[in-house]
Amino acid sequence: MKQERSRRTRELVLDAAAVEFAAHGYLGANIQRVAEHTGLTKGAVYGHFGSKDALAQALVAHLETGVQGLIARVRSGSAPAVGVSSVREISLVLADLLASDVRSGAALRLTVEQSLSRPQEPPAFVALRAFVEDALRRSGHDDVPRSAAPLLTDFVLILLVGSYYIAPTGREGVPASVRGLWDAFLAPAPSRLPAWGAEA
Amino acid sequence: MKQERSRRTRELVLDAAAVEFAAHGYLGANIQRVAEHTGLTKGAVYGHFGSKDALAQALVAHLETGVQGLIARVRSGSAPAVGVSSVREISLVLADLLASDVRSGAALRLTVEQSLSRPQEPPAFVALRAFVEDALRRSGHDDVPRSAAPLLTDFVLILLVGSYYIAPTGREGVPASVRGLWDAFLAPAPSRLPAWGAEA
Repeated sequence: MKQERSRRTRELVLDAAAVEFAAHGYLGANIQRVAEHTGLTKGAVYGHFGSKDALAQALVAHLETGVQGLIARVRSGSAPAVGVSSVREISLVLADLLASDVRSGAALRLTVEQSLSRPQEPPAFVALRAFVEDALRRSGHDDVPRSAAPLLTDFVLILLVGSYYIAPTGREGVPASVRGLWDAFLAPAPSRLPAWGAEA
Repeated sequence: MKQERSRRTRELVLDAAAVEFAAHGYLGANIQRVAEHTGLTKGAVYGHFGSKDALAQALVAHLETGVQGLIARVRSGSAPAVGVSSVREISLVLADLLASDVRSGAALRLTVEQSLSRPQEPPAFVALRAFVEDALRRSGHDDVPRSAAPLLTDFVLILLVGSYYIAPTGREGVPASVRGLWDAFLAPAPSRLPAWGAEA
């Protein structure tokens, strides 16, 4: 009973912290505001998470687990996780996650912020790259040449991170933007851009 | 003479501040480190720029001026700034700027950080959107349908911001990444992705 209440409070704190980190970044986040939003004292917040860093790491871990879970789900889906179509699928599912789950959205900002001052790529990005490379390799590079594989991997990360950061209508715009660009990217050129566009 | 030395010092401070802001963001930037890198005292740095905020705003203004200058250059170029080819051109020129000019790269990070806690879009992004919309309108939407114009505007911003933030090999990777994705985006589909990719 007490454990259950403690678990629920922990969840409330994580959500409030996500809103705070998403709006202000790691350094700008204020734990006092997190406490006020949950109706707790600052001390009570620190009782659940020992430090601001522990809160941020819990969110970053949440995104890592989320990405790995989605990869597992796509891999065990009815269609085999092979080729460009599965890369598109994981992009769309991740875009939905970033828009619908405030913790994942905040975690993306924290992950990107951390990555700017660290030499190694974040685990969530490494997992995503591995998925894309594997999906293309299993297709025997039937659909994109081997040389284009790194570009497609970058495309997925750039689309998600770029859409998150510029989202002109808020995070809710991320899925529409990612879907629209994937569809334009995959559409036969004549229907969207003229031949001279390719020559430019 | 004294004015000239003061101007040179100001430039040195701006460069050192750009390195600092690019690595640590606005809140993480340390003016003491900026002073150390320029061989000045912290007080001398503040003699040139009254506050950390004034330094950041000088960089943000530098990017705004840079974007507006590039737009003017593309518009007055030998080819008219019309259609998708001119949108591609401005993207590539901006990608080069982000990679080669440490002040512009830092300013992009500062601009994006600020935009996350403000309702209105940053002036540099507004100017870029206006350029894209104008270039497509002048082409009479010959090359992309009117409905695709907002998507193409997003594409430019997402490519630049996303490439900057995920740049796996540092900022120097931005131009190659932006160029590769533009070319894939503009290439006729059959040469890069199979028909079934479009159906997925």
